[in-house]
Amino acid sequence: MLLRMSTLFVRTLREDPADAEVPSHRLLVRAGYIRRAAPGIYTWLPLGLRVLAKVEAVVREEMAAIGAQEVHFPALLPREPYEETGRWTEYGPNLFRLRDRRENDYLLAPTHEEMFTLLVKDLYSSYKDLPVTLYQIQTKYRDEARPRAGLLRGREFIMKDAYSFDVDDAGLEASYQHQREAYQRIFSRLGLEFVIVSAVSGAMGGSGSEEFLMPTPIGEDTFVRSAGGYAANVEAVTTPVPDALPYEDAPAAHVEDTPDTPTIDSLVAVANARYPRADRPWTAADTLKNVVVALQHPSGEREVVVVGLPGDREVDVKRLEASLAPATVETAGEADFARHPELVKGYIGPGALGRANTGREDAIRYLLDPRVVPGTRWVTGADQPGRHVFDLVAGRDFVADGTVEAAEVRAGDPAPDGSGPLELARGIEIGHIFQLGRKYAQALGLTVLDQNGKAVTVTMGSYGVGVSRAVAALAETNHDDAGLTWPAAVAPAHVHLVATGKDPAVFSAAEELAADLVGQGVEVLYDDRPKVSPGVKFADAELIGAPVVVVVGRGLAEGVVEVRLRRAPGTAAPGTAAPGTAAPDAHRPSGEQVPVADVAAHVSRLVADLLAN
Amino acid sequence: MLLRMSTLFVRTLREDPADAEVPSHRLLVRAGYIRRAAPGIYTWLPLGLRVLAKVEAVVREEMAAIGAQEVHFPALLPREPYEETGRWTEYGPNLFRLRDRRENDYLLAPTHEEMFTLLVKDLYSSYKDLPVTLYQIQTKYRDEARPRAGLLRGREFIMKDAYSFDVDDAGLEASYQHQREAYQRIFSRLGLEFVIVSAVSGAMGGSGSEEFLMPTPIGEDTFVRSAGGYAANVEAVTTPVPDALPYEDAPAAHVEDTPDTPTIDSLVAVANARYPRADRPWTAADTLKNVVVALQHPSGEREVVVVGLPGDREVDVKRLEASLAPATVETAGEADFARHPELVKGYIGPGALGRANTGREDAIRYLLDPRVVPGTRWVTGADQPGRHVFDLVAGRDFVADGTVEAAEVRAGDPAPDGSGPLELARGIEIGHIFQLGRKYAQALGLTVLDQNGKAVTVTMGSYGVGVSRAVAALAETNHDDAGLTWPAAVAPAHVHLVATGKDPAVFSAAEELAADLVGQGVEVLYDDRPKVSPGVKFADAELIGAPVVVVVGRGLAEGVVEVRLRRAPGTAAPGTAAPGTAAPDAHRPSGEQVPVADVAAHVSRLVADLLAN
Repeated sequence: MLLRMSTLFVRTLREDPADAEVPSHRLLVRAGYIRRAAPGIYTWLPLGLRVLAKVEAVVREEMAAIGAQEVHFPALLPREPYEETGRWTEYGPNLFRLRDRRENDYLLAPTHEEMFTLLVKDLYSSYKDLPVTLYQIQTKYRDEARPRAGLLRGREFIMKDAYSFDVDDAGLEASYQHQREAYQRIFSRLGLEFVIVSAVSGAMGGSGSEEFLMPTPIGEDTFVRSAGGYAANVEAVTTPVPDALPYEDAPAAHVEDTPDTPTIDSLVAVANARYPRADRPWTAADTLKNVVVALQHPSGEREVVVVGLPGDREVDVKRLEASLAPATVETAGEADFARHPELVKGYIGPGALGRANTGREDAIRYLLDPRVVPGTRWVTGADQPGRHVFDLVAGRDFVADGTVEAAEVRAGDPAPDGSGPLELARGIEIGHIFQLGRKYAQALGLTVLDQNGKAVTVTMGSYGVGVSRAVAALAETNHDDAGLTWPAAVAPAHVHLVATGKDPAVFSAAEELAADLVGQGVEVLYDDRPKVSPGVKFADAELIGAPVVVVVGRGLAEGVVEVRLRRAPGTAAPGTAAPGTAAPDAHRPSGEQVPVADVAAHVSRLVADLLAN
Repeated sequence: MLLRMSTLFVRTLREDPADAEVPSHRLLVRAGYIRRAAPGIYTWLPLGLRVLAKVEAVVREEMAAIGAQEVHFPALLPREPYEETGRWTEYGPNLFRLRDRRENDYLLAPTHEEMFTLLVKDLYSSYKDLPVTLYQIQTKYRDEARPRAGLLRGREFIMKDAYSFDVDDAGLEASYQHQREAYQRIFSRLGLEFVIVSAVSGAMGGSGSEEFLMPTPIGEDTFVRSAGGYAANVEAVTTPVPDALPYEDAPAAHVEDTPDTPTIDSLVAVANARYPRADRPWTAADTLKNVVVALQHPSGEREVVVVGLPGDREVDVKRLEASLAPATVETAGEADFARHPELVKGYIGPGALGRANTGREDAIRYLLDPRVVPGTRWVTGADQPGRHVFDLVAGRDFVADGTVEAAEVRAGDPAPDGSGPLELARGIEIGHIFQLGRKYAQALGLTVLDQNGKAVTVTMGSYGVGVSRAVAALAETNHDDAGLTWPAAVAPAHVHLVATGKDPAVFSAAEELAADLVGQGVEVLYDDRPKVSPGVKFADAELIGAPVVVVVGRGLAEGVVEVRLRRAPGTAAPGTAAPGTAAPDAHRPSGEQVPVADVAAHVSRLVADLLAN
């Protein structure tokens, strides 16, 4: 494979694109791998398409290795199957919907559970046909509210989505493990660092899921881990519920005037000064903060809900949304408050909230943090301006309509499994695997006959790799200040061959070397441009980031060619280090002078070594 | 590559699907290659995807061979570029349109001229950058009024679309020829018979185009050819215009009562009996038939137009539409006639039509067949019930607002280039190449600086292969009554290996043979199902259609294995013969008995031979 810079459809840019926030986006655009076509919608240029194809090949090999069979579904799908599972509505504005010329409803599929379920139902009917795992590498659509970061969060993107079909739970567990192991191999082969974390299933439904996150400070997902091995997406973290406390000796609740307590700290100070607890001082964690939010239900209904949580914690909207899916959470506005005059801003207390507390059928739904167990004593609003209630005891003086995981998770919080304090980090979701169970099979009637001739509902898993996102994740992991630094396995070419100067002997030697290397299966990007300065050529080579750079230039007169590694061997991928900490020279090892007679063999061995690692 | 029937995701059907009209559709569904997801929208199953991938590989190789570079565009595109070229409107109801969550207009691209133009504009700026040819293999959308015939006319389909960019006409001509030659190689390698015909450019615009049609009676396109080498899509056939005739001696036009002339023949009989011509008898070709049609313009306007043509010919709506594009042609209805009381049904004549004839600015547009040259004498309607006008002379008594190619082309009509009489045939459009010229570059401002630093508008070509349609065309060409008969180059597997009976020795010998063959690079589909009868296995093998069938069965005891060719070598592809004429036995050669020790080498050589041809 020989590409020539003189004809390759590429134009490198010295400036960062204005809309690019993260390194992968900046560099993939600047180095001519991708180009924006519309918000969150990208075109793959020749270099980008080559990297994409290599990532796809790794995914295909690992899917084949576990016996998954490739199929290919349309992206344009009829409404009906998604209606039957409820997802036509549940997806809300994230779904691209359209009508055909006969006014039938269609969608651009964000994921294909329904269609795979129907296909297996169409072809298979017996337990003997199972297990089967099918997959596709296909273009997906999601009308993101905020597409960002280039390929990391797009509206049209490429996924590998696999679906397993089993007769029983043990089968599903086995199919799930096969995929899980294949994912580990895929990401390891790609050189992508990953953490497997428990996750929430969201619109997908099902009984459990895990995400493969690539740790990076620019990641959109926050996850936690403990020294004892617990790891979860922050949305999936459950709060350890403390034991209920006895409250026989608790003082009666009392409402007090509390002027000049605009903040929680000032309220705590007043509480300790004027209404101290006998056992210990009040802290912010003893105040009960009631946060008003508006839920947007897929049906279109807007519901005002109040979340009660300890005053030392903020609401984490993503956690709250995960708890209340498929509803989405919005800030409550003036219109919401106008509809609910019982909400006294700044002094909202349980007395105005919840069916049991108010005795009203149409009361605002009141959801409590799991820490608010019976017996806990609180300072909170008294539903009157300038007044708070003290010693309000949960379970005695108020109850909730339900609990909700809405409070932020903080470093140092205990892991739910008791494995120690949590630390927080950020990551990019590069894979997500789900034990769906029978949700889709039930909704769409996928049964098979078992050994006894009895119809049993099939149990399913679904398994996604963000293929285009993986390309961005690779760029995040493999770059330095000068450009991209691809691992050989996914680089658009193994060797960037640069001919410098104007000497025709240099160009013909380079031409010959290119042919030699190509003959040995090495992929060469040859910078054969006659009138471009060495500086520009080197800058392009660093920006484009092939792992080996070979320079044919003045040394040729002394019979040598320079061979450089784009990245020193064994160097940690700079993208995962703190930005700016790597010494630039570490990634630009000076070249080795190789006798021209040996260079093809030398480079070809070098490439083989890089590919093997 | 080893596939096992025991686990392969396939279910063959003995019955034709109810909606399948053509062999490729019937067989690709029955043999488990594709499955319908929605009208005109198909899912590729593992066998189908393998054929598709092989067709794509051939296309990629031939594109690479002429230096075309692969990119990949989104399918979901913003409205604006298509608005600038007018195609947002011109595509009418064939375009899938949708809105995103911000109410911006998008489309699912039917073809990508606009986006490629903008991409080249984005990256390139100098004549030195050109020529460049880019292509993609990508999913396209077209909301067909009547999706039909499975993959032959779908609403979501796969195309290879290439685009060339040149500074001048000579460059475009060269780029066009490179593509034309690549297309010939692609279709020849696939074993698809083709005819290259002149075509009309339709919504694509541009100065000229040619189609690659695969001749078959089930084709949707009608084309013509002459013994002298002329070939054209029937829409592109131009009528040789006769010389104008002198009309000094023609009698004056005269209107006559013509009761009892409900047909053209009866009118001709009356004309000859009562108002004979001096020179020769009147014929149907001397009657001027005025056909009322309604044009639906992309703007939404509906325009009634009258087409005048010799009474011995019918209007060919596809030819008329091609002449009047982007308007579409509909039958005129009662409402149209009601708006135009000057149209006297059955007696419409030129007197009521056209600006010049009526002297009215708002007259109905009157378009004439090219044969109606000045001096020709006609019998036609007199715009009064029961009356016709005789000896109405074109150019003397009436004129048109324009000419139009609307009349059907008939076998025996003269070729426009004088190369002899035309014959008619039908075909499937498998490729279409266009010299677009500067239409898109002009609309979107794609210029480059020439040698003198002057901005010149780039000239473009576009080149399409229907990749998914080619799979259907292959199935049309390669089948018999029992199933598909793939050429080795595109078969989902080279060898269908069948183990029959219950003898474990048979299965282990077959297993070993499969491994041997796979080791030699042969692709094997092994029917390892333990409890399926030989009859079912043979029927499946014939339906699925791998070129070599190897049977391990009772012969094993005597040390032999049977090797069959699915199709006798050198047999004409049955799909192109008249249906039902091929003797079934001709395609089911009886097997050769090969000693078990030699069979792997024998089969592997056989496969190599088949692949080489």
